[in-house]
Amino acid sequence: MAKDKKMVSEITAMEDDFAQWYTDVVLKADLIGYTSVKGCMAIKPAGYAIWENIQKELDRRFKKVGVENVYMPIFIPESLLEKEKDHVEGFAPEVAWVTKGGLNDLQEPLCVRPTSETLFCDFYAKEIQSYRDLPKVYNQWCSVVRWEKETRPFLRSREFLWQEGHTAHATAAESRERTEMMLNLYADFAEQVLAIPVIKGQKTEKEKFAGAEATYTIEALMHDGKALQSGTSHDFGDGFARAFGIQYTDKDNKLQYVHQTSWGMTTRMIGAIIMVHGDNRGLVLPPAIAPTQVIVIPIAQHKEGVLDAAHALMDRLSDYRIKIDETDNKPGWKFAEAEMRGIPLRVEIGPKDIEAGQAVIVRRDNGEKETVSLEQIEQKVGETLKAIQHDMLERARAHRDSHTYVAHNYEEFKDIIANKPGFVKAMWCGDRACEDKIKEETTATSRCIPFQQEHLDDVCVCCGRPAKKMIYWGKAY
Amino acid sequence: MAKDKKMVSEITAMEDDFAQWYTDVVLKADLIGYTSVKGCMAIKPAGYAIWENIQKELDRRFKKVGVENVYMPIFIPESLLEKEKDHVEGFAPEVAWVTKGGLNDLQEPLCVRPTSETLFCDFYAKEIQSYRDLPKVYNQWCSVVRWEKETRPFLRSREFLWQEGHTAHATAAESRERTEMMLNLYADFAEQVLAIPVIKGQKTEKEKFAGAEATYTIEALMHDGKALQSGTSHDFGDGFARAFGIQYTDKDNKLQYVHQTSWGMTTRMIGAIIMVHGDNRGLVLPPAIAPTQVIVIPIAQHKEGVLDAAHALMDRLSDYRIKIDETDNKPGWKFAEAEMRGIPLRVEIGPKDIEAGQAVIVRRDNGEKETVSLEQIEQKVGETLKAIQHDMLERARAHRDSHTYVAHNYEEFKDIIANKPGFVKAMWCGDRACEDKIKEETTATSRCIPFQQEHLDDVCVCCGRPAKKMIYWGKAY
Repeated sequence: MAKDKKMVSEITAMEDDFAQWYTDVVLKADLIGYTSVKGCMAIKPAGYAIWENIQKELDRRFKKVGVENVYMPIFIPESLLEKEKDHVEGFAPEVAWVTKGGLNDLQEPLCVRPTSETLFCDFYAKEIQSYRDLPKVYNQWCSVVRWEKETRPFLRSREFLWQEGHTAHATAAESRERTEMMLNLYADFAEQVLAIPVIKGQKTEKEKFAGAEATYTIEALMHDGKALQSGTSHDFGDGFARAFGIQYTDKDNKLQYVHQTSWGMTTRMIGAIIMVHGDNRGLVLPPAIAPTQVIVIPIAQHKEGVLDAAHALMDRLSDYRIKIDETDNKPGWKFAEAEMRGIPLRVEIGPKDIEAGQAVIVRRDNGEKETVSLEQIEQKVGETLKAIQHDMLERARAHRDSHTYVAHNYEEFKDIIANKPGFVKAMWCGDRACEDKIKEETTATSRCIPFQQEHLDDVCVCCGRPAKKMIYWGKAY
Repeated sequence: MAKDKKMVSEITAMEDDFAQWYTDVVLKADLIGYTSVKGCMAIKPAGYAIWENIQKELDRRFKKVGVENVYMPIFIPESLLEKEKDHVEGFAPEVAWVTKGGLNDLQEPLCVRPTSETLFCDFYAKEIQSYRDLPKVYNQWCSVVRWEKETRPFLRSREFLWQEGHTAHATAAESRERTEMMLNLYADFAEQVLAIPVIKGQKTEKEKFAGAEATYTIEALMHDGKALQSGTSHDFGDGFARAFGIQYTDKDNKLQYVHQTSWGMTTRMIGAIIMVHGDNRGLVLPPAIAPTQVIVIPIAQHKEGVLDAAHALMDRLSDYRIKIDETDNKPGWKFAEAEMRGIPLRVEIGPKDIEAGQAVIVRRDNGEKETVSLEQIEQKVGETLKAIQHDMLERARAHRDSHTYVAHNYEEFKDIIANKPGFVKAMWCGDRACEDKIKEETTATSRCIPFQQEHLDDVCVCCGRPAKKMIYWGKAY
């Protein structure tokens, strides 16, 4: 037992140092390794398998709503990046530049894509001529590079994996509809698959994407009360189309500009899973996304019949993503290891269980232990995985709700931000000056103007002038 | 009918100009689009869907033999690339260099990975300590960059998509076994899924991978008689391990170097599919890889009941990847379009068919037409797709075999290379000088030393000295 105590004690308690707890979990659960490439991580099998499941689930949902996958170049010529004024201002300071190819200096520098709006626009300008060519609903799975100064595994790194959807439509109504559709898809995915409840809303002018007419976002609350932007969907109107000359002839043979959107979700969501569900024993994975849903741990496996019974159990439960730990480690060490890795359900079987025709199942999320007759094991495991998925979402929702506060005036606002980690709901006049002031004085940023508005007060929490909108504020990753 | 004639006539006949035929197919089948990024292509939905199926099939096979997916950084610091002498010499002349990040010049240039041996080695040096940490059997799906001067869609481009496996083992025997296992996996995949027969063999010293002890390859023959290297698997022995200091303590507590392999397959295989199976009507896709396996084309679709019957057919055939063309184009145009895109099987249904309780099925590979009773349609479609897959492989094999020649002396060799496009089998003394001379004088390169050796002669085809091996020679992409 000394061994597992040591293993668990190697994780810093989240109450003591949340940032260190996060780093400990990421490393001890074997999700990433550090590399010699500054600011870039190596995603190890346990981490990448989570991303593969995210990809599979998201991609399935994309294809249901008509998304087609493509692949655009990794490089953007400088002149192309510069075509849309706001966009280049937003991204140029944080890109990596290729200046040499083979043995020669390049005539024009190429940046490694930080995002691919400009490449898709350039492509659409060539591909779209007639209303018959619309809509284009394309997506790509790839990596992007942003030259971040401070980096943290999954949350902020110089390279990260994501999907980026880029669409072109005939009308403003259609692009608005697609923007909302994809935001709703992200929100459903976060809640149903990742068990992470989110606030849906619109970003303020200050916080919107470089070049967008409107940016929609889903915002989640981490265990430490900080917000994490978890997916964004941008409506570009015809701004990029005008900059890149993307026009089509409509049914009346008139030239029109297309209306565009883009939307993305990243490996950052693995960080969200850790920080919403994890505990002081390590990772806790929702069954819907867990690479291994069930782990079978034989007890006293050297005794006759135990390993056979454990493998028979594996066969019966083969509908689930299941593994067995038959290493020669002690059961207590195996339990701690499976907990560290966040496997939702553990099934123990030993000589006494075999004699009694039963197994013991233990939930990772709440530690509940139950003795189950072997006859009912398939059904019971299925039900329990469902219950875990459900309970994890509700627990996260309860945490989020109990850490969401209302501020009626600026003193209250400052007090909450300083002392109660969480979301703060407050009214806003709509003026950028108040947003800037709040950020400067409290470090809180506006997370979104939620679609579900509430009338909390008549006046802005900051300046006292008439309020236009309710905003979610918070400190953010 | 004018319209489809025009469509088909837009493809150059392969007998007239094979290179132009290839470009025409790639563009008219909507596989790629050109971009403003020199040497990089945009892979469009019809092209990317083929890659997705390649990924799915290969990845499933990988996982069966214990491969785990990971993700390593996109950049390689110059000092890391330089650690293995042969490797850097092989790759340094063709990489893209990032010299600026954000607004600052980098202290050390980073290249965009041309391949990731050095990154995996750096990672393994940190991760592997004990024999308990072995083997590591990792793979990643990503894009790589090589600064090619002349580029062609799928066959040679500055960026391409691939998978690269990188493994570490305790012994030389294990790394050799893994190298062979992966080559056999590639060969099976090429034959069973892509319907492309391949020659398995070893590369000569001249042609082996930079830094490898041995490179194994599968070589396919295109319709024009040129060879295409279709997948490679490298055994590094402990060469990289010594350069990077990757050591483990064995069971006797002694320090040992690991033995490593790497293996890859790329989007180039889409080019192979085109050039092995395509014809003058366009692409021909093997059913196992075709994004759409069956297309339903309603005849006289304005007549009552036709579209209903076509959709009923879709439902009955929903086990297959199936689409319907209910655009208002004429049937002949739809036929030509479906042929251009390489859809393996077309199902036509019109008023007369409905009355007679039948449909007409037409094979893309050989144009065979058959009238099938609706009662038997599921069974018949399944059988026909299987037959297409089988026949495409056998047809490609027959073409390959009838374009494989034996050269007994150098005059014969030169004559065949000049006049009969295909593989040339000939004996070789094992001397690099003969290999160089043949390449210089005939432009043919040694494709491989096949595992299946034959004794054709006693002496080298080039120098007349005693022969050591039989070699496959050919002009290559």
